[in-house]
Amino acid sequence: MAAKGLQNVVIGTTNLSLVEGEKGQLVYRGYAIEHLARNATFEEIAYLLWYGHKPSLEETKTLRHQMAQHRALPNAAQTILRDLPRSTEPMDALRTGVSAIGAATPGTNIDIDHALALTAQVATVIATFHRLRQGLEPIPPRANLDHGSNYLYMMSGQEPTDAQRKMINAYLVLLADHGMNASTFTARVVTSTGSDLYSAVTAAVGALKGPLHGGAPSKVLDMLDAVGTPENAEAWIRSALARKERLMGFGHRVYKTTDPRAEILREIARTYSDPNLFKLAQTVEDKGLEILHETKPAQRLYTNVEFYSAAVMNAVGLPRDLFTATFAASRTAGWTAHILEQAADNRLIRPDVEYTGPMGLEWSKA
Amino acid sequence: MAAKGLQNVVIGTTNLSLVEGEKGQLVYRGYAIEHLARNATFEEIAYLLWYGHKPSLEETKTLRHQMAQHRALPNAAQTILRDLPRSTEPMDALRTGVSAIGAATPGTNIDIDHALALTAQVATVIATFHRLRQGLEPIPPRANLDHGSNYLYMMSGQEPTDAQRKMINAYLVLLADHGMNASTFTARVVTSTGSDLYSAVTAAVGALKGPLHGGAPSKVLDMLDAVGTPENAEAWIRSALARKERLMGFGHRVYKTTDPRAEILREIARTYSDPNLFKLAQTVEDKGLEILHETKPAQRLYTNVEFYSAAVMNAVGLPRDLFTATFAASRTAGWTAHILEQAADNRLIRPDVEYTGPMGLEWSKA
Repeated sequence: MAAKGLQNVVIGTTNLSLVEGEKGQLVYRGYAIEHLARNATFEEIAYLLWYGHKPSLEETKTLRHQMAQHRALPNAAQTILRDLPRSTEPMDALRTGVSAIGAATPGTNIDIDHALALTAQVATVIATFHRLRQGLEPIPPRANLDHGSNYLYMMSGQEPTDAQRKMINAYLVLLADHGMNASTFTARVVTSTGSDLYSAVTAAVGALKGPLHGGAPSKVLDMLDAVGTPENAEAWIRSALARKERLMGFGHRVYKTTDPRAEILREIARTYSDPNLFKLAQTVEDKGLEILHETKPAQRLYTNVEFYSAAVMNAVGLPRDLFTATFAASRTAGWTAHILEQAADNRLIRPDVEYTGPMGLEWSKA
Repeated sequence: MAAKGLQNVVIGTTNLSLVEGEKGQLVYRGYAIEHLARNATFEEIAYLLWYGHKPSLEETKTLRHQMAQHRALPNAAQTILRDLPRSTEPMDALRTGVSAIGAATPGTNIDIDHALALTAQVATVIATFHRLRQGLEPIPPRANLDHGSNYLYMMSGQEPTDAQRKMINAYLVLLADHGMNASTFTARVVTSTGSDLYSAVTAAVGALKGPLHGGAPSKVLDMLDAVGTPENAEAWIRSALARKERLMGFGHRVYKTTDPRAEILREIARTYSDPNLFKLAQTVEDKGLEILHETKPAQRLYTNVEFYSAAVMNAVGLPRDLFTATFAASRTAGWTAHILEQAADNRLIRPDVEYTGPMGLEWSKA
């Protein structure tokens, strides 16, 4: 039998990204994430993932234009977001919105045109629902803003500051792909049945929602709120661990050293985020690592991408219940690239299972 | 590396169903499918899958009552179905409807109450959308009908005949669970992230839609239409195979002999369906098997569950573009049972993948 949870089971090949858990490396199509976070835009990364090479200036310009043209939602999808209860969880609204876009989009070819349109639209779904749940009208997208800036603009109607623009872009670049994580795997299983791109991304949104995958970054801020001050960090952490609680933003299935994305986000947070929040976060990280390495030396727990995501997302002005949806807005580029890769060389993903129930029972008619 | 498509890779254990592909056996929790198809109701099977034992008369009565009470949709979900374009594919409408039910249902516990409510509601989503797309008002469910009869009643406003009631019940029993098929696996991967039951079933609907999984039964009828008459069967099949076309309803990833569900559905179709259609189907089956075993002897291709499903679904009066959605209405019992089983002993399903792309590229800023 394969290892539980398919841990370390290699299920195929990909040309999209490499996650080196022991070394703390992440590579998109040959480029180290550290270079990309500093130098690339989200649109360039999406192009790289979909087309397989770094775009020329002309190619980037074309892609930016195409994505900007596809930001508006089909009418049915916008109406459906209006009909959701205002108390709907943003990830439930996003899942329903993506499904509705699929229902309202004729043609189900799996191609880059649909991938880029949906990646553009996912940002609009999140911002539209966020406006509607506050009783505000949606703000139409602006074609002259880059993807990340337009996302923030559609939330508030204000153009982001230069610092906010840099932060949201770096965040979107860092989260765009990550090997065969659970939501990406979900998208590939759905694709493998011959289903369509919208079904696959809808499924992936539902998988990302889970707290063992993408559903926990807001809980890092909740934890920092509970800690309150740097002076309280050590006592709070020892008390939480004594109560058998998990520290939020620590530990990862694959990384056995610091997540490279966490290191980059730490520097971004150091530069741009609220200094008090950053100091608190850094103290909790330092004390948390110290105490975890002392109490659970075998486990090799380090801060993960969620830890400093929280500070960065807070600094761009996003409410904490949109953090996971914003993760999805980035990851849609990676999901759709994996869907394209799966469809190009497909075989139905259908594992086997060992039956451990009873046998030979007789069903008499009631 | 694991076999492509995880074929024959045993990913865990289940107490729910056993699929013996070499022997052509299907067992739900110890009971052979042949007994169940003759003697059990869909509600009894759902109970068996969820609770783990054959229900008493009293337990069946309680479950029937509970499911009947949950048939109505949340207002938001019904409104959302109204908002979809009438041309929406039924599986896209079902996926969006299930997601909307999840958005509008407070609380995300994974428990039998949510499983039975959603299994009841899935039938209502399909019938509601089918009415709306014809410009007709939905027909409210009737609590004094069993699950299958009420499903057909909500489509037409007419109580089904005794023969139709038997056919839809047997169909719903036969399709309720089937080991670790692709949609069930999808539901378990989503559940493994800690996400909710609605996200998992939404994802499973999207997976079932694919023609390599549940999306092809209507194509069997399309094929029978194209064949036209029993006399034309041999020539048509030889010509189709010469054009490298697949025969619809033949072959299965797991079964290397006749699918036991196909055998049962053949007998049901023989008894109840249009005799001309049955004769045509049987001739296509006989000639198809003869020619396939002659031309592809190594492949062990037999008719699968979809082959006679088409005749049976046609006989209960369902239009062919609702066949896959009706499959989903049955399988929701199995999906939710697997979701319960996964959540009860969970580990994140997160495989690994081999990176085969380039390395060491330099990204210079544009």
